[in-house]
Amino acid sequence: MATTTHRAAVLHGPKDLRVEDRPVPEPGHGEVLVAVRAVGLCGSDLHYYEHGENGPNVLRQPTVLGHEPAGFVVGHGAGTDELPHGTPVAIEPAHPCGRCALCRAGRYNLCPKGTCFGSPPTNGALTELVAVPRDFVHPLPEGMDVKLGALIEPLAVAVHAVGRVGVSPGERVLVTGAGPIGVLVAQVAAACGASVTVSDVAQARREFVARLGAETVDATALTPDPDRAHALADPDGYDSVLDCSGVGPALVSGIRALRPGGTAVVVGNPNRPETALPLAWMQRQEMSLLTSFRYAAGDFAAAVRLAGSGRVRLDELVTAEFPLERADEALRSALVDRTQMKVLVTPGGVVV
Amino acid sequence: MATTTHRAAVLHGPKDLRVEDRPVPEPGHGEVLVAVRAVGLCGSDLHYYEHGENGPNVLRQPTVLGHEPAGFVVGHGAGTDELPHGTPVAIEPAHPCGRCALCRAGRYNLCPKGTCFGSPPTNGALTELVAVPRDFVHPLPEGMDVKLGALIEPLAVAVHAVGRVGVSPGERVLVTGAGPIGVLVAQVAAACGASVTVSDVAQARREFVARLGAETVDATALTPDPDRAHALADPDGYDSVLDCSGVGPALVSGIRALRPGGTAVVVGNPNRPETALPLAWMQRQEMSLLTSFRYAAGDFAAAVRLAGSGRVRLDELVTAEFPLERADEALRSALVDRTQMKVLVTPGGVVV
Amino acid sequence: MATTTHRAAVLHGPKDLRVEDRPVPEPGHGEVLVAVRAVGLCGSDLHYYEHGENGPNVLRQPTVLGHEPAGFVVGHGAGTDELPHGTPVAIEPAHPCGRCALCRAGRYNLCPKGTCFGSPPTNGALTELVAVPRDFVHPLPEGMDVKLGALIEPLAVAVHAVGRVGVSPGERVLVTGAGPIGVLVAQVAAACGASVTVSDVAQARREFVARLGAETVDATALTPDPDRAHALADPDGYDSVLDCSGVGPALVSGIRALRPGGTAVVVGNPNRPETALPLAWMQRQEMSLLTSFRYAAGDFAAAVRLAGSGRVRLDELVTAEFPLERADEALRSALVDRTQMKVLVTPGGVVV
Amino acid sequence: MATTTHRAAVLHGPKDLRVEDRPVPEPGHGEVLVAVRAVGLCGSDLHYYEHGENGPNVLRQPTVLGHEPAGFVVGHGAGTDELPHGTPVAIEPAHPCGRCALCRAGRYNLCPKGTCFGSPPTNGALTELVAVPRDFVHPLPEGMDVKLGALIEPLAVAVHAVGRVGVSPGERVLVTGAGPIGVLVAQVAAACGASVTVSDVAQARREFVARLGAETVDATALTPDPDRAHALADPDGYDSVLDCSGVGPALVSGIRALRPGGTAVVVGNPNRPETALPLAWMQRQEMSLLTSFRYAAGDFAAAVRLAGSGRVRLDELVTAEFPLERADEALRSALVDRTQMKVLVTPGGVVV
Repeated sequence: MATTTHRAAVLHGPKDLRVEDRPVPEPGHGEVLVAVRAVGLCGSDLHYYEHGENGPNVLRQPTVLGHEPAGFVVGHGAGTDELPHGTPVAIEPAHPCGRCALCRAGRYNLCPKGTCFGSPPTNGALTELVAVPRDFVHPLPEGMDVKLGALIEPLAVAVHAVGRVGVSPGERVLVTGAGPIGVLVAQVAAACGASVTVSDVAQARREFVARLGAETVDATALTPDPDRAHALADPDGYDSVLDCSGVGPALVSGIRALRPGGTAVVVGNPNRPETALPLAWMQRQEMSLLTSFRYAAGDFAAAVRLAGSGRVRLDELVTAEFPLERADEALRSALVDRTQMKVLVTPGGVVV
Repeated sequence: MATTTHRAAVLHGPKDLRVEDRPVPEPGHGEVLVAVRAVGLCGSDLHYYEHGENGPNVLRQPTVLGHEPAGFVVGHGAGTDELPHGTPVAIEPAHPCGRCALCRAGRYNLCPKGTCFGSPPTNGALTELVAVPRDFVHPLPEGMDVKLGALIEPLAVAVHAVGRVGVSPGERVLVTGAGPIGVLVAQVAAACGASVTVSDVAQARREFVARLGAETVDATALTPDPDRAHALADPDGYDSVLDCSGVGPALVSGIRALRPGGTAVVVGNPNRPETALPLAWMQRQEMSLLTSFRYAAGDFAAAVRLAGSGRVRLDELVTAEFPLERADEALRSALVDRTQMKVLVTPGGVVV
Repeated sequence: MATTTHRAAVLHGPKDLRVEDRPVPEPGHGEVLVAVRAVGLCGSDLHYYEHGENGPNVLRQPTVLGHEPAGFVVGHGAGTDELPHGTPVAIEPAHPCGRCALCRAGRYNLCPKGTCFGSPPTNGALTELVAVPRDFVHPLPEGMDVKLGALIEPLAVAVHAVGRVGVSPGERVLVTGAGPIGVLVAQVAAACGASVTVSDVAQARREFVARLGAETVDATALTPDPDRAHALADPDGYDSVLDCSGVGPALVSGIRALRPGGTAVVVGNPNRPETALPLAWMQRQEMSLLTSFRYAAGDFAAAVRLAGSGRVRLDELVTAEFPLERADEALRSALVDRTQMKVLVTPGGVVV
Repeated sequence: MATTTHRAAVLHGPKDLRVEDRPVPEPGHGEVLVAVRAVGLCGSDLHYYEHGENGPNVLRQPTVLGHEPAGFVVGHGAGTDELPHGTPVAIEPAHPCGRCALCRAGRYNLCPKGTCFGSPPTNGALTELVAVPRDFVHPLPEGMDVKLGALIEPLAVAVHAVGRVGVSPGERVLVTGAGPIGVLVAQVAAACGASVTVSDVAQARREFVARLGAETVDATALTPDPDRAHALADPDGYDSVLDCSGVGPALVSGIRALRPGGTAVVVGNPNRPETALPLAWMQRQEMSLLTSFRYAAGDFAAAVRLAGSGRVRLDELVTAEFPLERADEALRSALVDRTQMKVLVTPGGVVV
């Protein structure tokens, strides 16, 4: 590693992204250094880019974005040497304390002291090089394109969400919202043996999902008849609904379509702080509402295995690639172009 | 059984309760006849009495109220003869079809074809005699006062609710609302090894609970600081909250007091069709919201065993008793007198 | 139904099977009459045929064998009329009391009062016509060959077994024994997203499984090194093993191949009353040993849905068909011909 | 800390225990130093003492015994300063790697790289001072005698074991073996709302348990009638049995006493490598056999809370105390005197 700087896409304020030179990171004790080859852009990146904030998190200083990285191992800090140089890996971007009661119980996504790549003030991975704890680096399955490794993170989100509800073979699952997370959730639920239906208001997204083999339904058709809303739930309704839209009415429509005793899971980040739910009706049907946040112990590993098994299609989701120097263009495209599914930024400067 | 009629408390319309002669019921195939000795009054009885309706259920014809009965077995229909004459029993008032997928899976509280005593148009048990399927009659533990058998139904509600969340020893449980259900839920959670805190706005109810040994907190003190509401959940928060108040803000306050990953359970019937929940915050903490409706397979049996074990105090809950002829007075008292916990109506005409 | 008799394969003693005239059954209250088109033969049929007994059950009087039937609905008793004449159905052969605590909890496979087709003294379905409770008749998915309906019963066994352990996507599952149940268990586990390996001593059976897409391993290669048996379990071992062989050493080999905390499930009937297990070693690894018996609430319905989804291949399993008059030959073939996977008997006398 | 040596009870070979001077341990990064006040002796200590080995673990060099310590915090290494000097604590003696998949999932008792105090070659806590990671030190509840802190370790074993099976209120639980673990398991199960019966062959131990309020049964009375062993399980049998005896026939007797679908848990270390189980019978009843090993995430914390709640009685278990210099005598007493329940060694040299 002759050079002492590398390129990084740094957000200075709303819509003010600059690709700059930054010092090459030094892998610390137990860390590895990864030459980044692909970073997926996700809704939270777009939120920071557009508004300089995302829910409770606010950009207060220039911060590198990006938390869906994959690349090749090119260095090690002290105390870790198991991964050969050049190993293709996906990177788990959220790093818990590892010591608190929640971490110990395997629910490290809830660690109150954890940090996450690209959540200010923690820098992210829209860079050429990134240092990351060895335990959060996951070798890719044999033969998998390293760029698709950037999709392991959203796939782990989907694995975690489906695991929350515990799908059984033959169950009927409704996924509301056919964005990247919805498409992956639908694929994971199908890989668990479920019969999956995906709803969206956009015809293009429904067609995308249909090409992957799922049933689709126009989300507007799910809007419950106000008369029917007082009736009992349909015993032949869905066993579970996973809302990946973040839109309250979509979630409520999904809940109304559940069978008695069914379960709803909030997967997409709700786009409003509060959501009005038909709790009185839900209680008469003893329905459950779970939420799913990121991924916890075992989810990344399961996502890697699932990707390697060929049971989910990741390549279809990639609709555009931009080099690191055009990261701003990549973010704008993801923000405004509704035909985009998953946009990748592909740093390439470091020779492995 | 020489007489052919018995007395029954029939609701003809809002606040129009008449104790009338009705034909003695004939136990059908697989049914037993029970001489009722006590019937607890509950919130849904009061709703019918005051408004002639309860949620989606409307009184359209004169209907006998009452669904928390206990008494002595005094007769059998064909095909059932196991219970000796005079056996003291609690009666499970909701009768599912026994055949649908939900019934088969043990979740018979969700049976779409089920009926329930005192839910119009099904007549209830505010009577001297009632016929009931043998399988829904539960012999009381040795030595237990038959009148306390009327509390097995709400105790089964509590057993089911606590079972929904699955309390472990040493967990911290918050119960919001110190009415009869809240007090029983608190006792069942304590019997599962939990450290229980009960909140209520009424000091008298908090004192009642304190006498039973639970921690109490003024519900108004739980109202979350609006600033704090944006912060992360407290890792030392409650593991679960069971809302027995039916009041939206109480539920939300309880949710705000949960630890990350905590679980809320809706036990009391929500008093509004819709409830606004802080879903975005809940998702960041991966909280769960369950609901609990009545009782399902095994809950009545567990309630009877728990009552027999002495781990829950039922006698303390009974704050008034009225003979059947004064059922109207009993309902009015339960409706207006906030010092009442559980009011019993005690039919006594049939000699066993 | 002009005729008053129909043909039935009756076992009079070991290897004494006679196809005889029997009175046409009259569907009772809540029952339907089914014209049988296919009956699968299974290990317990062969046990009765060869030895006149199966575990604790002994043939004491001539009994019709057969408990894996499918056919067409051709009549109804009182109180049931939902299924159109000619509906193709699979039949759930074990009929619980529906009233005991186990039945109510959905575990009706454990009902102490239950009966099962073809378990003496209850007559089975190796007949032209059979009367069966409506609730235990399951319409087949659109377009499915009625003969394959005979495989729904063993598929439900597999669904139940996999459900016992609760397979997650990406988990590694070992199935020991590649008979019909093992092949179906492997397919159901794969449909749940697992990576499945199947072991058997017979090369022909391993090849059969390999054609269906599973990994295979020679069971003899699993025999643990006695030195290694003292070491700790391999963290990369199988998450679960489902023993479908009924052979003690196969189960133990599978247990030795588990990761720490792994789970073994006894699916095949153990061929000896007692089995020696390495409990001390299992405890240090905190392993679990579950057992699976038949199918309980929801399993038949899930099996039908799974068959309809195309995620499992049933047709490949049928290696021979015999008309009812040649039932004896069918049993002999299933007993001695190790290339047989599933042998069907196909009654055909009744015109639908 | 003026002195540079402290006293430690070191096992040099079978029955060769010497109390010697050893260098005072230096707390490392993230560690605290604890002045030991009590160490409980347990079966594995006795095994090492008597045989120089315990299952797969062999004494190959002089090793300090003891893994049930409690004491006062008297020092800190770097990176940890939260606990005030003099805080009374129980010490969790098994220290996992914290990084492997099992650790991350909260099952750190199964960590293949973990060490445990007093398991050769790792030194234990039969000493005046011990250094231990901060995360494995648990402050005792207000007002609790520090000596009883030595019982938190076996109580955590009991919490974990009962948690494995998941006891519900009103369930019937059988505990086989009334040694210290059996007594604590019985108390924890009772604190979960179960009706508990404890069996033992020794009348003195049954009387001990009876004084604590549990039902008892002579273990010899549980031996199943060979005729009955072929019959179906009793629907009124125990919901679960936790074997704390380590004796095969006791476990099997307990299994025979389960209801259909019941669960057995192996808690005590089996005293033979192999155990013959009636698997064929168990499968017909769909019984489960779980094992329980030490304690995992959350168990120590739950044990501390449970001890603080007063729901379990720890003081009754302590039947003898010996100063550190008489550790050899303490071990001999625990080994031969069957009236001993829990023997404590009480180091006292360090002034806090």
